[in-house]
Amino acid sequence: MKAMVHQGPGSFVWQEHPTPQIRKPTDAIVKIEATTICGTDLHILKGDVPTVEPGRVLGHEGVGAVTEVGAAVTEIAVGDRVIVSCISACGKCSYCADGMFSHCLADEGASGLGWLLGHLIDGTQAEYVRVPFAETSLHRVPQGVAAEDAVMISDILPTGHEIGIRYGAVKPGDVVAVIGAGPVGLAAMMTASLYGPSRVIAVDIDANRVEQAERFGVSDGVISSDPEWKEQILALTDGLGVDVAIEAVGVPSTWDMCLEIVRPGGHVANVGVHGKPVSFPLESAWIQNLTITTGLVNTNTSRMLIKLLAQGRLDAGAFISHRFSLDDIESAYTTFSSAAETKALKVILAARR
Amino acid sequence: MKAMVHQGPGSFVWQEHPTPQIRKPTDAIVKIEATTICGTDLHILKGDVPTVEPGRVLGHEGVGAVTEVGAAVTEIAVGDRVIVSCISACGKCSYCADGMFSHCLADEGASGLGWLLGHLIDGTQAEYVRVPFAETSLHRVPQGVAAEDAVMISDILPTGHEIGIRYGAVKPGDVVAVIGAGPVGLAAMMTASLYGPSRVIAVDIDANRVEQAERFGVSDGVISSDPEWKEQILALTDGLGVDVAIEAVGVPSTWDMCLEIVRPGGHVANVGVHGKPVSFPLESAWIQNLTITTGLVNTNTSRMLIKLLAQGRLDAGAFISHRFSLDDIESAYTTFSSAAETKALKVILAARR
Amino acid sequence: MKAMVHQGPGSFVWQEHPTPQIRKPTDAIVKIEATTICGTDLHILKGDVPTVEPGRVLGHEGVGAVTEVGAAVTEIAVGDRVIVSCISACGKCSYCADGMFSHCLADEGASGLGWLLGHLIDGTQAEYVRVPFAETSLHRVPQGVAAEDAVMISDILPTGHEIGIRYGAVKPGDVVAVIGAGPVGLAAMMTASLYGPSRVIAVDIDANRVEQAERFGVSDGVISSDPEWKEQILALTDGLGVDVAIEAVGVPSTWDMCLEIVRPGGHVANVGVHGKPVSFPLESAWIQNLTITTGLVNTNTSRMLIKLLAQGRLDAGAFISHRFSLDDIESAYTTFSSAAETKALKVILAARR
Amino acid sequence: MKAMVHQGPGSFVWQEHPTPQIRKPTDAIVKIEATTICGTDLHILKGDVPTVEPGRVLGHEGVGAVTEVGAAVTEIAVGDRVIVSCISACGKCSYCADGMFSHCLADEGASGLGWLLGHLIDGTQAEYVRVPFAETSLHRVPQGVAAEDAVMISDILPTGHEIGIRYGAVKPGDVVAVIGAGPVGLAAMMTASLYGPSRVIAVDIDANRVEQAERFGVSDGVISSDPEWKEQILALTDGLGVDVAIEAVGVPSTWDMCLEIVRPGGHVANVGVHGKPVSFPLESAWIQNLTITTGLVNTNTSRMLIKLLAQGRLDAGAFISHRFSLDDIESAYTTFSSAAETKALKVILAARR
Repeated sequence: MKAMVHQGPGSFVWQEHPTPQIRKPTDAIVKIEATTICGTDLHILKGDVPTVEPGRVLGHEGVGAVTEVGAAVTEIAVGDRVIVSCISACGKCSYCADGMFSHCLADEGASGLGWLLGHLIDGTQAEYVRVPFAETSLHRVPQGVAAEDAVMISDILPTGHEIGIRYGAVKPGDVVAVIGAGPVGLAAMMTASLYGPSRVIAVDIDANRVEQAERFGVSDGVISSDPEWKEQILALTDGLGVDVAIEAVGVPSTWDMCLEIVRPGGHVANVGVHGKPVSFPLESAWIQNLTITTGLVNTNTSRMLIKLLAQGRLDAGAFISHRFSLDDIESAYTTFSSAAETKALKVILAARR
Repeated sequence: MKAMVHQGPGSFVWQEHPTPQIRKPTDAIVKIEATTICGTDLHILKGDVPTVEPGRVLGHEGVGAVTEVGAAVTEIAVGDRVIVSCISACGKCSYCADGMFSHCLADEGASGLGWLLGHLIDGTQAEYVRVPFAETSLHRVPQGVAAEDAVMISDILPTGHEIGIRYGAVKPGDVVAVIGAGPVGLAAMMTASLYGPSRVIAVDIDANRVEQAERFGVSDGVISSDPEWKEQILALTDGLGVDVAIEAVGVPSTWDMCLEIVRPGGHVANVGVHGKPVSFPLESAWIQNLTITTGLVNTNTSRMLIKLLAQGRLDAGAFISHRFSLDDIESAYTTFSSAAETKALKVILAARR
Repeated sequence: MKAMVHQGPGSFVWQEHPTPQIRKPTDAIVKIEATTICGTDLHILKGDVPTVEPGRVLGHEGVGAVTEVGAAVTEIAVGDRVIVSCISACGKCSYCADGMFSHCLADEGASGLGWLLGHLIDGTQAEYVRVPFAETSLHRVPQGVAAEDAVMISDILPTGHEIGIRYGAVKPGDVVAVIGAGPVGLAAMMTASLYGPSRVIAVDIDANRVEQAERFGVSDGVISSDPEWKEQILALTDGLGVDVAIEAVGVPSTWDMCLEIVRPGGHVANVGVHGKPVSFPLESAWIQNLTITTGLVNTNTSRMLIKLLAQGRLDAGAFISHRFSLDDIESAYTTFSSAAETKALKVILAARR
Repeated sequence: MKAMVHQGPGSFVWQEHPTPQIRKPTDAIVKIEATTICGTDLHILKGDVPTVEPGRVLGHEGVGAVTEVGAAVTEIAVGDRVIVSCISACGKCSYCADGMFSHCLADEGASGLGWLLGHLIDGTQAEYVRVPFAETSLHRVPQGVAAEDAVMISDILPTGHEIGIRYGAVKPGDVVAVIGAGPVGLAAMMTASLYGPSRVIAVDIDANRVEQAERFGVSDGVISSDPEWKEQILALTDGLGVDVAIEAVGVPSTWDMCLEIVRPGGHVANVGVHGKPVSFPLESAWIQNLTITTGLVNTNTSRMLIKLLAQGRLDAGAFISHRFSLDDIESAYTTFSSAAETKALKVILAARR
C-alpha cells in the first residue's frame, strides 16, 4: 500500500509501505476513506516529538471501513464504517476504568500513553491502518454522516471539548476566552456552546482567524497584537477577568496571556502542545484560587459528540478549508503548514474510490 | 487596650493602641480570649507583605466574647462566645454568593480580598478586635469546646482542608503526599482522613516533624533530604506517582517536588505562600492531564469543621505546642519563629481573666 | 394603596390595603412596576395552600423601584430598579450558607421556607411590597432590560432551570422530555439549551401548547392523549428511554408517565406542585439506578440568568401572552385561569405611570 | 461437579451439575475457593425473582483460581486468584462506557442487566463457575488478603458503598442514618467512614443487630420498635432531620421511615430489594428539595475497595459470622435464613482443599 512515512526531521514521503496485518486478537484493519492533518504532525515533521521514529506512518485521525478483525473482536464487524479515535485504549486497565484513556497502561509501547497511531505505531495517513483495541477505539459512523465530517471526531472536536471546555469547567453564564483560533481553539469555541456561556471571546494575532471564528459560535473577537488587547477582554467582563481562559497555541507568551486575563477563582485550561517550560507567577497566583489544567484527550466524550453530530447540532463541516486526494497528501501538507497564507483549517484527504 | 503593633519591617511591639469601636452597622467588637500566630505573620514581620502598613495590629485568628454589635447585627448578640474567621465576608457580593468568600468584593480596602484582619485593618493579637460583616464572619463556639481548640478553626484547619484537600480533590483510595509538615501541612494531613485516602504521606526536611505527623493521621513519612526521597514515595504508590501532591511550604523546590511525584491525571494543590515565580514544565506537563490549584481559604467549610470538632472527630489540640499569656506575645513570637529548635506548632496566647 | 387580597377559598379582591412599612432594618419597600400571576396563585385561590390566610396580599413575582430601605441595607438604595425574588433569604443561616435559600431558617413565619411573599406575608400583587432580607432577595434590573422581561426572573425561569434542568442533571447529548408545556415546563425547555441536550421533547395533552413549545428550544413534540405517546418518545431515544424526564404538571398521571419513559440510570425531576401522594413502583425501580428529585426554587442561579437575559441569550419575552393594567388584575386572573381557551402563558400586570 | 441448584420456589439442592465450559472467547472458568449467600438468594428461594429458572446454579459472590480462559482473554491468566464480581460487564457498550456496568447491554440474556451469575446464567455456589467478560468482571486478589475477606468485594461492600453511600452523596459532617443493620446495611455503615460523616446511626428492629453495628463504625444506635425512634434520631441532628437516610431492608415501612427522618435538601438512598410499590408523599415532598436514588451495584468502585482492603483500612472480616464447608451449603442456608436466632451476617462456604 501507499502511506505517508516519516523519514526523520524535515521529511515525510508518500511511498510504498507494508500493508498492515492483524497482530493481536483485539486488532482491526481499517481501509481509510478520509483522513486529515493535525498540528501535531507538523511538530513531528520539525523533530519536536523524538518518540516518533523514522519509518513511522503518520496520522492519528481517520474514517474508513473495517476489512479484517482479530479473534476477540465481536462488537465491530468487517464492513462497518468507523471513526478511528486518536487514542487507542484497552478498556481494562486502571486508567481506562476511570475513563482516562489518554494514559492507558496497556499500550504497545509501554509508555503509559493511549496515543499510539502515527506516534508509537503506524498511523492513518495511509491506505490501511491497524487499530489496536478495536472495540474500545473505533466508533461506528452514524447513518447520514459524511466521512469528512466524521473525521473531526477522531481528535479535534473531543480535544477542544474535553481539554478546553470540560477541564476548563465552563458553566452557564461564564465568559470564556480562547487564545488561539486555529483548529483546536475553534473546536473549543464550538463546543463551548454546549455549556451556556454568556460570551465566547476568540483571541488571535491574525485578524482573519478572529473573523472566521464567528462561524464557531464566538460572540466577540480580540486581535492580540492590539496594545489594548487586555483592556478589550476585561471590558467584556465585569472588569475582574474571564471565568475561563483556554490556551490553544503552545508558547509561553499565550500562557502568560491566560494568567493576565483570568479572574480570581477562574480556570486556565491548557490545550496547546508546548516545547518549553513556562513561568508560573505563584507569588501572586497563590492567593488567586486558580485552577490550571493540562491534558491529552481521553476521547471519552466522542460517543456523545457523534450523537450531536448525527442530529445536526455540531457543524463539523465548518472546520474544512481544503480537500485533496489522499495520494496528493504532500500538497496538503504544504497547504496546511502555510495556514497564515492559505487560511487552512482542516484539510481533508479522501481516498479515491 | 494593648495590642501587637507592626512598626515596619522587622519589628512588632506589644503596646498601647486605641480600643476599637463600631464603625459600620454590620460590625461587632470581640474581646479576645485566645489567639495564635500564623506563619503569614512571620512573612509580614520580614516585610514580605507590603500591603500591611506600619501601625497595623497583627493577627487574623482568635476566639472571644462579643462586647458590642452594630445596628444591623441581629444573629450575633453581646455575650456570645465566637470564633473569628480569618476571612471577613459580606455574604452579598457575587463572590460571596458563590461561596468564594476569599475574594469578597465588599472589603473595606477595596482590594477584592476577604483577608482584612491583621492585614488591611487591625487584627486579633490585641485585647479587642473589630470584626466587619460580623454575622457572616463569626461562628459561635459550641458548648464544651475549649477556646484554644476553637481557635484552630479561624484559619489553620479550614485552610488545610479547603486549599489542600478539597482543591486537591482527595477521594477514597487516593495516595496523598503533603510536602511540608508545618501547621498548615499538618492540617491538610488531619483533614485528609475525611476523604478515605489509602495513604497519607508526610514529607519534610525535618525528621522530627515527619515523626510527629503520625499524630495527624499520617500513614507514611519521608525525609526530603534523603537522596532516595522520590523513590520512597513512588514505592508507596503503584509506581506511577501519588494521586494528590500538596505543597505546604512556599518555595520553588517544594513546588518542583510536587510535579516530580504526581501521577498522570493527578492533582497538585498549592497551599504555601510563595514569594517568587516557579517554573512549570509545560513541555512535559501538557500531556499529563494534571490539575493545579492555588488559593486563599474561603472558610466556607468552617461550620462543618466546627461540627466535627464538637463531636470529637477532629483533635484540634494536637496542633498546640506552647501556651503563653497574651501579654507575653513577644516571647511567643520568639518561640514560634524558631520552630526548628523549639518544635513549635501552634502557640496559644490566652488572655488573663 | 390597592392590592389583590385573599378573602378565603375562591375569592381574591383588588381592594384598599394598608401600605407596607419597614419593620426590620434588613427590609426594603418596592413600588411595583410589573408583576404577574403564577399557577401557584390559582392553587391558593382553590384553597389548596391552607398556610395562606385570608387577608393576605397575593403574588411572589415583581419588578419595581425601591422607595425606602431599612437601616442595615447598604447595598440597595432608594431609586434602584429591582427584581423581587420569590424567595426571601437571610443569607446567614446554615441553609443559606449552602445556597439552599428555599429552606432559609430565618423566615418570619419560622416555617423553614424561604417562600414568604404572597404566602406567609403580603406579596407583590399590590402597589407596594415590603421585601425582607432585601440585600439577599432583590436583584438590580440591568440597563436595557424591560420590566416585563425581568419579572420572569422572579420565579419562572429559575424554577424551570434549577428544579427541572439542574436537579435533572441535564448534560450534553442528553434526551430530555418535559411533561407539561405550561409556563414552568416551558422555562425548563428554554433553559435546557444551556446544557447541550441532543433533543428536548415537549409532552402535553394540548396540541396548541406542544406547538408553541417550539419557540422555547424544543426539538420534538408529543401529544399525550395519543395512545402511542410512549412509543413516540422512545423512538426519539435509542429505545431505552430518555435521560431526563421532567414533571411539570403536578398530578399522579404525569408522575407515572415520567417513570414509564426514563431510562435505567436516568433522572426524574419533579417541578409540579402536587396535592396528593403518588405511587412509586420500587419493585421494579429498585434495580433501575434512578435519581428522583423534588424542590422549591433556590433562586441561586437568578444572578446568572439575569446576565444571560441582559445579553439577549434568553428570550424572556416569549413567555408573555397577555398584558393588563395592574388595577385590572381581576380580569387577568380570569384570562390566566382559562389558559386552555385563552392560550395564556404569563400575563403581565403593569402599573400605570 | 457439585452445585447448589434451584429446583423452583422453595427448594435448592446441592447436587451433581455439568461442569462449566468456555463458551465465548471472553469467558474464564474459576474454581471456587470461597463463596457466600446473599439476601437476594433467599428472595429467589421464595420465588420472588421469577427470572431465575429452575435448574439454575445459584450464587453471585465468590473467590477462586482461574482454570481456563477464552482466546480473547489476555489480562487474566490460568492460575490467577480472583474475585468474581456479581456484575458481568462487557466494558464496551454505552452503559459500560459510562461506568454503569449494572445495565450492561451486552449481557447474555439481553435483559439490559449486568447481574447474570446465579440469575440468568449459572452462578458461584458450585465447584466451578463460568465468568463472562472475564477481563472486566474479575479482580485479582491482592497478596496477603484471605479469600473469605476478598469475597466481601463480590457484592456486599460495593453495594453498600455505591448504592448507599455514594448515591446518598454522603459528605464530611453529614449525619447518616441506615435503616436496616443486615449485611448490606452494615456495608453502608462501614464505608460511610470514607466520607467523614459526623454521625452514623444504625436503625433496626433487632437490638442485637443495632449493638453489633458498633463494630462497623456506627456512632449511635436506635431500635425502631421504640415508639420514640423518630424523636431519638432527630435529637441526634439539629432537629431538622438527617442529611442522608439509607433504606437497607426493602419493605414499605422502612421506606416510609426514611422519608420521615430526612431533612429538607437531604438524600434518601434505597438499597433494599423491594417486592411492591411504595407511597411517595409528593404533596409534602414536592417542596422539600429531596433526592431519592435506587440502584443495582455497578462494581465500579471494587478496585478502590480492594486497595483499601489490602492496606487494612476496611475490616471485611467483621462481616463473617459463620463458616461452613462448601458441600455443607444446605446447612449454611438454614443458618443464614434464620438470622434473627443465629445472628448470622455473612456465612462463608469454603471449598475443601
